[in-house]
Amino acid sequence: MSKLQGIFTPILVPFDERGQINEPELRRFVSWLIDHGVHGLYPNGSSGEFTRFNPAERRRITQIVVEENRGRLPIIAGAAEANVKETLAACEFAAGLGVRAVAIVAPFYYKLTPESVYAYFAEIARNSPIDLTLYNIPMFASPIDVPTIRRLADEFPRVIGIKDSTGDLAFMMRLISQIRPSRPDFTFLTGWEAVLVPMLMIGCDGGTHASSNVVPEVTRRIYDLFRAGNLDAAMKWQYRLLELFDAMLYPFEFPVGFKAGAELRGIHFGIGRLPQTDSQRAEHKNLTNILQCILADFDLVNPPASGCAIRSPEASQPSQAIAQPASKNIGPEHVQQLVHEVLDEMKNRGIL
Amino acid sequence: MSKLQGIFTPILVPFDERGQINEPELRRFVSWLIDHGVHGLYPNGSSGEFTRFNPAERRRITQIVVEENRGRLPIIAGAAEANVKETLAACEFAAGLGVRAVAIVAPFYYKLTPESVYAYFAEIARNSPIDLTLYNIPMFASPIDVPTIRRLADEFPRVIGIKDSTGDLAFMMRLISQIRPSRPDFTFLTGWEAVLVPMLMIGCDGGTHASSNVVPEVTRRIYDLFRAGNLDAAMKWQYRLLELFDAMLYPFEFPVGFKAGAELRGIHFGIGRLPQTDSQRAEHKNLTNILQCILADFDLVNPPASGCAIRSPEASQPSQAIAQPASKNIGPEHVQQLVHEVLDEMKNRGIL
Amino acid sequence: MSKLQGIFTPILVPFDERGQINEPELRRFVSWLIDHGVHGLYPNGSSGEFTRFNPAERRRITQIVVEENRGRLPIIAGAAEANVKETLAACEFAAGLGVRAVAIVAPFYYKLTPESVYAYFAEIARNSPIDLTLYNIPMFASPIDVPTIRRLADEFPRVIGIKDSTGDLAFMMRLISQIRPSRPDFTFLTGWEAVLVPMLMIGCDGGTHASSNVVPEVTRRIYDLFRAGNLDAAMKWQYRLLELFDAMLYPFEFPVGFKAGAELRGIHFGIGRLPQTDSQRAEHKNLTNILQCILADFDLVNPPASGCAIRSPEASQPSQAIAQPASKNIGPEHVQQLVHEVLDEMKNRGIL
Amino acid sequence: MSKLQGIFTPILVPFDERGQINEPELRRFVSWLIDHGVHGLYPNGSSGEFTRFNPAERRRITQIVVEENRGRLPIIAGAAEANVKETLAACEFAAGLGVRAVAIVAPFYYKLTPESVYAYFAEIARNSPIDLTLYNIPMFASPIDVPTIRRLADEFPRVIGIKDSTGDLAFMMRLISQIRPSRPDFTFLTGWEAVLVPMLMIGCDGGTHASSNVVPEVTRRIYDLFRAGNLDAAMKWQYRLLELFDAMLYPFEFPVGFKAGAELRGIHFGIGRLPQTDSQRAEHKNLTNILQCILADFDLVNPPASGCAIRSPEASQPSQAIAQPASKNIGPEHVQQLVHEVLDEMKNRGIL
Repeated sequence: MSKLQGIFTPILVPFDERGQINEPELRRFVSWLIDHGVHGLYPNGSSGEFTRFNPAERRRITQIVVEENRGRLPIIAGAAEANVKETLAACEFAAGLGVRAVAIVAPFYYKLTPESVYAYFAEIARNSPIDLTLYNIPMFASPIDVPTIRRLADEFPRVIGIKDSTGDLAFMMRLISQIRPSRPDFTFLTGWEAVLVPMLMIGCDGGTHASSNVVPEVTRRIYDLFRAGNLDAAMKWQYRLLELFDAMLYPFEFPVGFKAGAELRGIHFGIGRLPQTDSQRAEHKNLTNILQCILADFDLVNPPASGCAIRSPEASQPSQAIAQPASKNIGPEHVQQLVHEVLDEMKNRGIL
Repeated sequence: MSKLQGIFTPILVPFDERGQINEPELRRFVSWLIDHGVHGLYPNGSSGEFTRFNPAERRRITQIVVEENRGRLPIIAGAAEANVKETLAACEFAAGLGVRAVAIVAPFYYKLTPESVYAYFAEIARNSPIDLTLYNIPMFASPIDVPTIRRLADEFPRVIGIKDSTGDLAFMMRLISQIRPSRPDFTFLTGWEAVLVPMLMIGCDGGTHASSNVVPEVTRRIYDLFRAGNLDAAMKWQYRLLELFDAMLYPFEFPVGFKAGAELRGIHFGIGRLPQTDSQRAEHKNLTNILQCILADFDLVNPPASGCAIRSPEASQPSQAIAQPASKNIGPEHVQQLVHEVLDEMKNRGIL
Repeated sequence: MSKLQGIFTPILVPFDERGQINEPELRRFVSWLIDHGVHGLYPNGSSGEFTRFNPAERRRITQIVVEENRGRLPIIAGAAEANVKETLAACEFAAGLGVRAVAIVAPFYYKLTPESVYAYFAEIARNSPIDLTLYNIPMFASPIDVPTIRRLADEFPRVIGIKDSTGDLAFMMRLISQIRPSRPDFTFLTGWEAVLVPMLMIGCDGGTHASSNVVPEVTRRIYDLFRAGNLDAAMKWQYRLLELFDAMLYPFEFPVGFKAGAELRGIHFGIGRLPQTDSQRAEHKNLTNILQCILADFDLVNPPASGCAIRSPEASQPSQAIAQPASKNIGPEHVQQLVHEVLDEMKNRGIL
Repeated sequence: MSKLQGIFTPILVPFDERGQINEPELRRFVSWLIDHGVHGLYPNGSSGEFTRFNPAERRRITQIVVEENRGRLPIIAGAAEANVKETLAACEFAAGLGVRAVAIVAPFYYKLTPESVYAYFAEIARNSPIDLTLYNIPMFASPIDVPTIRRLADEFPRVIGIKDSTGDLAFMMRLISQIRPSRPDFTFLTGWEAVLVPMLMIGCDGGTHASSNVVPEVTRRIYDLFRAGNLDAAMKWQYRLLELFDAMLYPFEFPVGFKAGAELRGIHFGIGRLPQTDSQRAEHKNLTNILQCILADFDLVNPPASGCAIRSPEASQPSQAIAQPASKNIGPEHVQQLVHEVLDEMKNRGIL
């Protein structure tokens, strides 16, 4: 089977008004992503809020994505369940659907030692009917360290790749230098689009990026420009992507900001499974306005009716990049709202 | 309803040879715990490996514990599920069984802001048919900070307590000083038995302790000695409990060491859901020998056939406490094994 | 020589209008502290901002304190310098002045391994002409772990104690249980007054507390009540001390809040060596008002002219303690200032 | 004055047999570095162990470097002292010597808030007679965040650059995108040579690299290849540098491994100021053998007499890079030593 490469979208999941998976919209979203140039699909990743669904829902999501894909793109399906036995059942289910590979996040909640992380993946790799990629995201789950990844790559042909979400270039270089010589088929994917171009430059095969739910044509363009050897242009888009990424990641709970961005592209996500307070809802509206201004600069959406703060002119090369931080886009018209929120927050905290 | 107090056991779950819940042994364990003096039972806590079961199994565990308890002790049932809706369904199930309260851990995997942690618990508290205790364990889940706990305590009578596993005395004092004046019914439980006596001294109502699965008579004795005003004796036992706790917690994955301890008391836990490597299994055997020596000192089990290293004589008061660290109990006879393990580990890491 | 015990004050250093050590005021402060009941003095600790002085100034501070003390109390002098050779010279200087012992913080800036921390202290202990206490403060310096402290205590009679500022009860218990049996002369001091009473209960000999610069009579009273076996009263004061401690520690840079508190007691600290912005100066004033209200409740100072927010009545025992968090004392009259500061901060951050 | 760019060497300091600065060797080293192609010199950086010297020694080091340089290269002199006043005096001293700029690390030991970090640098920038670069190294000192760096760059023309040692590409991109448009003269230097090429690609002007003490020709070559547009070759050398960097950084205390590497190049560093245990000395020897093997592969030194383990052949492009981890170079001949060390360590820890 061919090696995994390119940009895989960890698909965000739309909900209906009852808080259930909105199947028609999810199908529409899958085709929209394919039409906008992503290289592959990745249901039940962190962006897909896999921990907020029950096992049956996770299977249903994979099934919908597979059906709607109709064989057009390779699919990596998140298959982590509560324990090895149920994870293996999810692997079998995914294999039955014909997906290309599964992705298994390291055990979370309990923080395991490297030896136990190895034992967990070894047990799965030994019994899986389908290729698997390791998923390293130490900010949420037990870390998978370099010796463990190498050990698994050396011992199990079924382990065909790593998705790493640390954004740590040197970590990825250590992996590539230790594993690629003996496993040229092994895939290295980054989950941190803030540094997608540098990751490609050190030899990564691609990435799985939450941002590709929102601007699939941009992540695709960056990848294509890099592969075409046009580094300067790739870096210019990388800087613009970073601005958008920061504005979707930091001010929101994850992955709410990415849903807000994709909503602006016309996908309807409904009300999520994470309860919000009134002050969060008001803040959400303001932050979404900022996203709309950034996306308007990409010529992908119209600017908000209330207008956007003046933004610096674009520079033509990375060394003069001018992407402004999201916070600079808060215009004077938002002061009132901000003060209001601050006072609310003070009340909430018992200060007033 | 009466206020929760005393030592609640976060019940370890026995497995059968197929890796399923061993119901007869779980029932036997419940009664054994009751017979040995615990004040309450707490199924589906962290010690109960709740994340390694599926939703149906978690319900079954609660049901077994409730049935076997036959109304003898108050029960707090862990009821956290993948999202608010399913958590509320688990609360209803628990309420139907007649448990005293549920315990809900803060959302994990994703690390939420305090505002979202508030929103999550508020939504549950608003709709729960049963009293609930907050469960703060920041090493595994989103932290619940002091203002958030206070806010929830102020707004929702259904929120009747906090279980905090940080072991941070000052944190608990801040909670008590801010919440107890207006909510005298609110229960403060510590999950860190290393400092049970100091926690009782600052005003905690009790604790939920993994160690009470292993030495229920000791945690009970500490509690009783403290309530009887016999601080010196309570502290002496506290020092001994710390030695045991350290030996069960740090050298093992959690909660494997506690299962090893309870196994020595005659409960059969079977093979757990966490895969182990051969070197872990060998290490497990050695570490369990150390536990057996410590428990033999408590006169609760016989020493291992291979004997125990000489241990320092006990002192009669805290200021001369002599509990030795677990590592001191490794006798010369273990050198061979240790060197063997080190070499194995070096091989595993690719050094040899 | 007698064992170190009781409350040692890590002396804050007053400055004159030129930013130099204000010697007369420092002398006055030393005698004020002695008159108010502290058991010992500790120049050049973290509260004494030892890193903000040059080596000559640090010696001068020790000299002034020794002179003014006139043999009344035991003195522990901070003696850490840039390297072992200069640290040993500082030890000799301190020995020449007749102080009881020196305190040496673990190397900072570079984070050393336990083996290097051991080597550092061993080299000093081997050559020091004076008894030395180890100073463990992992939030600022390389941590000194339990095996290292034990190793140093076992090998070097010159190492006579540990000052630990983690506030971790279990850590201190591990130290006491491992070291006290073979070194009954070894002193265990806590640097975290938030949990002074619990630390005394587990067997600590005393503490070195920044708060004792501000309320020496309170830290003394807590110590005396505990030693007299009056735990309930000790805990009641502990809760009140926690409120004050939190209000001096968290809202300020360290040790600025403690200087603000001692200033309210009539000691003049001048302008410190840490530059402040205008918004910090405004905030400082508000925070100091809160401190004044807390200290007024202790009947140690008059309340501020602007009055204090109503505070909850005191409860008579720890389990009903009612100390309110500092933030609750911000009355409606401070809203304007707060909003102003928020807007300033927004401007500073480029949001407005 | 021209903008700072290229590779600046944070000079390691040789000691004589009395533990004093070895001036002749330091002079020889300066000229050796210049002869081997570095672009600039940086005395009193972290590699220069500035915290292990007293103020007079730090001045002397700068003076020696300036003298020996004889105007050949631009010099950035570390000038952080115990407080603002003394730091400004060091700035004046450096200015008097004619260095190009000073570098000021953020305050360390105490961890300051962003506002205080701002106030500290603002006070210095307001009064400094010489250009200054900010030095961000959050693993050792208070972090300097993006808004603070921007604020300082916006307000003070004297602040002409940042040296950031985090290795975080996205952090550097945020800085560049926010500051470069209005301050095209501002210099961005990375202190993390593990990712030098990616940092250059995103627009950095150069770096200050401990490794350039050891392989100045390699760091120069990487820089030149990148500037010449030969990215593939630059990345190939980057991978080789990473292997060396990892082998000098992680197994040693910093900067001991870099001194061991430069010693192999013929510079004599003497015994450092950090005491070592016997087991550290033995380990040092083994680790240095590994360094020698790596440097022999660079054709910069001869291999050790005992030979080197077989190393994988080099690949011709990053995507097939084959740099092996240092640990792979431990041959069977080292087993005996390792077992010995393990046993020693166990003894030290009290296990045997």
